[in-house]
Amino acid sequence: MTQATIITIGDELLIGQVIDTNSAWMAQQLNKAGIRVARRVAVGDVWEEIWNTLDEESKHAEIILITGGLGPTADDITKPLLCEYFGGQMVVDEGALENVTNIFKNILKRPMIERNLKQAEVPDNCKVILNKRGTAPGMWFEKDSKVFVSMPGVPHEMKGMMEDDVIPALSRYFKFPHIAHRTLLTAGVGESFLADLIAEFETGLPSHIKLAYLPNYGMVRLRLSGTGAEKNTIEEEIQSYFDTLQLSVKDYLVTNEDETLQQVVAKLLIAKSKTVSTAESCTGGYIAHLLSQKAGASAYYLGSVVSYSYKAKEDLLQVDKNTLETEGAVSEEVVIQMAKGALKNIQTDYTIAVSGIMGPDGGLPGKPVGTVWVAVGNKNSILTEKFYFRFDRQRNIELTASYALNMLRKFILSDA
Amino acid sequence: MTQATIITIGDELLIGQVIDTNSAWMAQQLNKAGIRVARRVAVGDVWEEIWNTLDEESKHAEIILITGGLGPTADDITKPLLCEYFGGQMVVDEGALENVTNIFKNILKRPMIERNLKQAEVPDNCKVILNKRGTAPGMWFEKDSKVFVSMPGVPHEMKGMMEDDVIPALSRYFKFPHIAHRTLLTAGVGESFLADLIAEFETGLPSHIKLAYLPNYGMVRLRLSGTGAEKNTIEEEIQSYFDTLQLSVKDYLVTNEDETLQQVVAKLLIAKSKTVSTAESCTGGYIAHLLSQKAGASAYYLGSVVSYSYKAKEDLLQVDKNTLETEGAVSEEVVIQMAKGALKNIQTDYTIAVSGIMGPDGGLPGKPVGTVWVAVGNKNSILTEKFYFRFDRQRNIELTASYALNMLRKFILSDA
Repeated sequence: MTQATIITIGDELLIGQVIDTNSAWMAQQLNKAGIRVARRVAVGDVWEEIWNTLDEESKHAEIILITGGLGPTADDITKPLLCEYFGGQMVVDEGALENVTNIFKNILKRPMIERNLKQAEVPDNCKVILNKRGTAPGMWFEKDSKVFVSMPGVPHEMKGMMEDDVIPALSRYFKFPHIAHRTLLTAGVGESFLADLIAEFETGLPSHIKLAYLPNYGMVRLRLSGTGAEKNTIEEEIQSYFDTLQLSVKDYLVTNEDETLQQVVAKLLIAKSKTVSTAESCTGGYIAHLLSQKAGASAYYLGSVVSYSYKAKEDLLQVDKNTLETEGAVSEEVVIQMAKGALKNIQTDYTIAVSGIMGPDGGLPGKPVGTVWVAVGNKNSILTEKFYFRFDRQRNIELTASYALNMLRKFILSDA
Repeated sequence: MTQATIITIGDELLIGQVIDTNSAWMAQQLNKAGIRVARRVAVGDVWEEIWNTLDEESKHAEIILITGGLGPTADDITKPLLCEYFGGQMVVDEGALENVTNIFKNILKRPMIERNLKQAEVPDNCKVILNKRGTAPGMWFEKDSKVFVSMPGVPHEMKGMMEDDVIPALSRYFKFPHIAHRTLLTAGVGESFLADLIAEFETGLPSHIKLAYLPNYGMVRLRLSGTGAEKNTIEEEIQSYFDTLQLSVKDYLVTNEDETLQQVVAKLLIAKSKTVSTAESCTGGYIAHLLSQKAGASAYYLGSVVSYSYKAKEDLLQVDKNTLETEGAVSEEVVIQMAKGALKNIQTDYTIAVSGIMGPDGGLPGKPVGTVWVAVGNKNSILTEKFYFRFDRQRNIELTASYALNMLRKFILSDA
């Protein structure tokens, strides 16, 4: 099977100032195209280390994809390095020059400086890949039947090149086997218990089909991956194993597609032509963000009140002042009133209300950090549950959102 | 300088199903401790590839940190591999056994199965690192004066081990030089223009001090990093260069600390004892999430209305129905009314209101996808601005949040 390495260049990755989201996206696209990513390597803006990494990785892989280090500033050394590595000369590429000129003239509407012109220079022994979304061109090199592609590190520029040019060109250059994936999401069950539940199934898998456990936000995703020369055969084979797997975990199954919990909730709402709102305290709008993240959200999501203060809870959701004072903001009665307020004021079919203590401080007697009350419901009934999360603030917020969305999912399913 | 490699193990990283946030966090911590991260490598759950990577990376680095592949399921092969790699025997570790037993008895409150007991087994030639937040113990190996540390891939478990045990133990084992960083954030200026502005400064830097450009969300972060044997000397030296750098970019300077724009806004509000709210349409609660993400947010952030529908804009923010119909939801007049509604209903000193078309669909005549109106203000005055973003939905949401927060920052500064 054709193997690829993704090399990411930039000191910022090695001091942790940015999180590498490019590699994950690239790996997804390569897998879909039938290319196995064997390794991902990040190196700094250091000549010798980049050079050695190119040597080393081309021993393991036929495709070497490189991102980053192509900017107009002095810390970007990738282009001259590649020029020397492949024994070329720098020349001005007319297409790249037209592109950079056009961007400054028509989009940025500011004068171009010498430094920007430099971006149109490329080694004369590469095929230039036009960057429709930025000034730095991509470069395609071939050496000893291996392909090296250099792309900018700016995510949307790299994505455009990969989709429009690189993946199609790789598919023409190599013959790829087919990779089939099937993914399901479970909730309410631990990784070990799940592993025992499907131990026999797992042992019985042939060697070209692999099972992976991907725990995340208190849920476990299971993924089957199979490789085969013939698309239909491997797709049919993996589907048959996947059917068995689904049956084995049916009590915990959230979805049998590679989608998020909020996408499952969105699909349910759309199918029933129903709407949802949220009333959030401790999650500070994070559940609203998840529900509105995907295009088309306005079909089912109408709005939210983030009532961080007592006063906002009273004014925007008509939570009773007396209840707040006697029960406290983190209480069953308050989340019920918040849910009722959201249903009435935002006029949706369903709602989610949450109030909790996310930490690291703010614990109260009987209500330690991590205590969260969640209510989900509609005009006929409201269901509540208390949770204790024991992680850091960010993770507590994410877990609260997961558990609340899963409560709503079950509520909608049971609401015939 | 002592060099480290971070090896991340797991097929999920190579098919792009999860984004690697661990490596960035680890790199930050290592840098702070004076350890340079030379490379980051991700490999799949494949025996031979993990083995070869250990061989290869130990040629380049003195410290090899490994995360992932320690779960209780069959795809997790790291522990037996490390046992064989270092020539040990698997034995039950009493401390790890007590930990896993305790977690099941007192925290998970469910019976422990055989598979979980396995997690207490470790190679007899490693030092065990207790996992206070999970069942898989960490392992410390030494070979040819190099240190190999294996940790679980679950982020909060790995973080706990790094902070409590691994970093302190590495600092005892090696002698580290000091690494000093200074970071500033600019807005409203492109990377190339900035590079020209500080070209002379950059050329004059000594070889042990590096400058990096980190563009993100329409802003550019600049980072100076210097390495020296003696802490005070290098800190003083880098501070002096940093003072010059700050002066050169003063017209675009947002902050001279390594903090986010929302943290800058939060500090301004706290210093002035003022409060903020948001009225969001297209950003769906994302600005609220940014403002409430950090502990202590309730000191300045009171709440938000996410008015995704026309009706929510009318009911929760008293936007005039007639204005919505004649001007459309994405208009200057509507964001002004939204801002006024939020100031009145949530009773804050300042507010941010946004309405736009995030894409990929929904463009209107004269209002293409990416059109966003932003209003910031207080009871005395409201400032508006129209933006055109031309990226994907997620990035348009993030850019809107950045530009809106920067408008508010400038408004607060000018509001004497």
